[in-house]
Amino acid sequence: MSAAQPIAAQAEPVLLRRDEGGVATLTLNRPTARNALSLALMGALQDALDGIRTDDSVRVVVVNAAGPAFCAGHDLREMRANPSPEAADHLFRTCARLMTSLVRLPKPVIAQVHGIATAAGCQLVASCDLAVCTDDARFATPGVQIGLFCSTPMVALSRAVPRKAAMEMLLLGEPIDAAEALRIGLVNRVVPAAALDSAVADMAGRIAAKARRVVAVGKEAFARQIEMNLDDAYAYTAEVMARNMAMADAQEGIDAFLQKRPPVWEG
Amino acid sequence: MSAAQPIAAQAEPVLLRRDEGGVATLTLNRPTARNALSLALMGALQDALDGIRTDDSVRVVVVNAAGPAFCAGHDLREMRANPSPEAADHLFRTCARLMTSLVRLPKPVIAQVHGIATAAGCQLVASCDLAVCTDDARFATPGVQIGLFCSTPMVALSRAVPRKAAMEMLLLGEPIDAAEALRIGLVNRVVPAAALDSAVADMAGRIAAKARRVVAVGKEAFARQIEMNLDDAYAYTAEVMARNMAMADAQEGIDAFLQKRPPVWEG
Amino acid sequence: MSAAQPIAAQAEPVLLRRDEGGVATLTLNRPTARNALSLALMGALQDALDGIRTDDSVRVVVVNAAGPAFCAGHDLREMRANPSPEAADHLFRTCARLMTSLVRLPKPVIAQVHGIATAAGCQLVASCDLAVCTDDARFATPGVQIGLFCSTPMVALSRAVPRKAAMEMLLLGEPIDAAEALRIGLVNRVVPAAALDSAVADMAGRIAAKARRVVAVGKEAFARQIEMNLDDAYAYTAEVMARNMAMADAQEGIDAFLQKRPPVWEG
Repeated sequence: MSAAQPIAAQAEPVLLRRDEGGVATLTLNRPTARNALSLALMGALQDALDGIRTDDSVRVVVVNAAGPAFCAGHDLREMRANPSPEAADHLFRTCARLMTSLVRLPKPVIAQVHGIATAAGCQLVASCDLAVCTDDARFATPGVQIGLFCSTPMVALSRAVPRKAAMEMLLLGEPIDAAEALRIGLVNRVVPAAALDSAVADMAGRIAAKARRVVAVGKEAFARQIEMNLDDAYAYTAEVMARNMAMADAQEGIDAFLQKRPPVWEG
Repeated sequence: MSAAQPIAAQAEPVLLRRDEGGVATLTLNRPTARNALSLALMGALQDALDGIRTDDSVRVVVVNAAGPAFCAGHDLREMRANPSPEAADHLFRTCARLMTSLVRLPKPVIAQVHGIATAAGCQLVASCDLAVCTDDARFATPGVQIGLFCSTPMVALSRAVPRKAAMEMLLLGEPIDAAEALRIGLVNRVVPAAALDSAVADMAGRIAAKARRVVAVGKEAFARQIEMNLDDAYAYTAEVMARNMAMADAQEGIDAFLQKRPPVWEG
Repeated sequence: MSAAQPIAAQAEPVLLRRDEGGVATLTLNRPTARNALSLALMGALQDALDGIRTDDSVRVVVVNAAGPAFCAGHDLREMRANPSPEAADHLFRTCARLMTSLVRLPKPVIAQVHGIATAAGCQLVASCDLAVCTDDARFATPGVQIGLFCSTPMVALSRAVPRKAAMEMLLLGEPIDAAEALRIGLVNRVVPAAALDSAVADMAGRIAAKARRVVAVGKEAFARQIEMNLDDAYAYTAEVMARNMAMADAQEGIDAFLQKRPPVWEG
C-alpha cells in the first residue's frame, strides 16, 4: 500500500495523490479551510486530471478529502482579496473548466463524500460520475445566502437531480442530508462513516477490473449522446457499439463469457 | 396583516392579491368552479405577473386557491361555448404564455396546493419553481379521459418528473396522491392541511430574506442554462457569476459572512 | 380468449402475437435463449410494430416474454459467429431502429417484465412508454463486463432515469432489483409475480378504453416536445391541443363529461 504523496512541490500540498491497483485517489488537502477550492487547489486538480487523462495505469479516479469537510466551495477570502472583474472571470472559468474535465475524463470518477459538500463542493459531487457519502454528509448550494447565487454549481446540479429539487437547494440555500441526496439522485450510495473507505474501494475496484479502453468508450459516449436528440443519439451510439465490437477486448470478453472463464483484457 | 384585495374591478373577482413582507400571494378565486382557468382568470393572473415583474416590493410569489380545490384546469363550459378553431388557438396560446411567464418571472413562485390540481392546474404546479401541498392533495393530467390529451400540461410535467411517471399520468389520466407527487418530484414538500399556510409562509419568508437582485439573476440563469449543452451552460453561467460577483449585494454578502454578521441587501 | 398465434411461418416462432380487446400482446418466444434479441426476433418485432402502426384495431401494445427471463439482450453467439464490422453495424442499426419504432409508435407500449431484463432487454423496458414488473425482476446493462459497453441501451436508459443511476448501471454492469428500478423511474409498478398478468391487463384495458386517435396525438406530441426548448415546446403543443380540440372525440368527450355520461369514441 503506497502512502499518499503530494503531487506538487509546495511546502503545504493542497492535493494529495495515491495510486493503487489502477485507482488514483485525489485527496483535497486544505483541511483547515474545509478544502475550499482556491486557485491553487483547482490548478492542482486540473493538473492531476490532465495527467491522468493519458495515464494508462489509471482506470478509475476517486476524489476524497482530508479533515472534517469534503469541500466548502470557493475560497471566499481569496475572492474578496481579488475583487476585480478579471479575477472573478478567471476564477469561474477555471472552475467550469475543471468540472467539465471531470465529465470528459475518459476514466470514471467517484466522489467519496463526508461532512459538508457545499457550493462548488456540491458541484464537484454532481460532476463526478458516481458518488458515495456517509450518512451524516450534507449538501448545499448556499450562494444565495451570501449574495452570490450558485449559478455554475447549478449547471451540474440541475443535470443530476429533478428540477424542483435543484430549485429548492438553489433558492433556499439550505443543506440537505444524505438520505435526501440519495432520494433525489445526487449520490449513489449512503453508508456509515466507518464503511466509507471500503464502500468506495469496493466500487472503484469493480470498475478497475473492467477493460480500460471499453470504459473510456462508454463514458465518452454517455456525455455526448445525452446532449443529442433521440435519432442522433442512436445513430451515434450504434456507430460507437460497432467500433467497440471490433475491439479486441470485446472479442475476448464475449469469448470468455461464452466459455464461462474470466476475461483477460488488453490493457 | 393586510386583507386580501381583488385585483380587478369585477363584481366577482377571480383573482385576489395580498402583499405582505415582500410576498405577493395570488389566490385563485373561482371556488364554485374549482378555480378553473377561464380566460378571465388567466388574464388576471397574466396581468398580476406582468405587474409583479417590475415591482421591486415583491420578492417572492405564492399561488394558492380559495375553496376545496386548487385548480381543475381549463373551463370546459367556456371551451364548449366557443368551439371555433380560433377560440381554441387563443385559449391554448394564452395558457402557454401564462405558464412561460411563471418560469421567466424574475421572482421565485411557490405553488401552495390543496385538494386537486388537474390538467392546466397540474401544469401550474409543475411550472412553479417550488410546490408545497397538503397530504390529501391529488394531481392528474386527465385530458385523455375526455378526448383532449393534456399536451400543453405535458410540457411542464415532463420537465419536472421522470419520463415514465409523466407518461403514466398522461396516458391513464388518473390522479396520483401527494406522496407519489413528492416521490416523482412534482412537489417539494407534503404537510398536513393545518400546516400548509405556515409551511408556505416559512418557505416564502426565507426566500424573501435573500437579496432580490441576486435571486433574479439566479432564477433567470436556471431557465436559460437548462436548455443549453454543457459547454454553453458553463460559458454562460461563468459569465453570470462574474457579473453577480461585481454586484454590491455579493460584496456585502461575502463581507457579512466573513465578519459573522447578517448581511444588509441593497434592495 | 384467442390463443397466442405465431406471426411468422417459422418452425419455431420467435415472436407470438395475441390480440384481444384492442390490446396486442407481443410475446418474446425464445425461452431457451432467455429471449435474446437475435436478428430474427428483432425482425419479427419490427414487422409486428410496422403492422400495428396502421392497424386501427390495436389501441395498446404489451410486450412480454415466454420462459424464465424477459430478455437477455443481444444474441452473443450470433454476434460472435458474424464478427465483421458490417454485421455489427447492421445489428446495432437494426436494434436502434426497433427501439425508436417503439417510441414513435402511435399506440402506448407497456413492458410486462419478469425475471431478468439485461442490455438490449433493459433498453427495451426503458424504451416502452410504461413498464410493470414482478417483485423479483432484475435489470442490468452489463455490457461493460464483457468488453462491449451498453452504449445503445444507454440512450434509452439515460432518458428514463437520473444520470448517476444510469452511470452506476452502465459502469458497474450489475443488476438492480425491482424496488430500485421503481425508485429510479425505470418501471412504473412492481407487483407479485402472481399479479403481473392482471396488473398489466388492467393498465392496458384502461388505456384501450381511451379514444385511439387522441392517444396517438398525445404520444406523438410527447416524443416531439421533450426534445424542444420551452418556447418551441409550448408553441408546438398549443397547436396540437387546438387541433385536438377540433376532433370529434374531444367534442364528444367534453359533452359526455359535462352531461355525466360515458363517452362514445369515434374509433
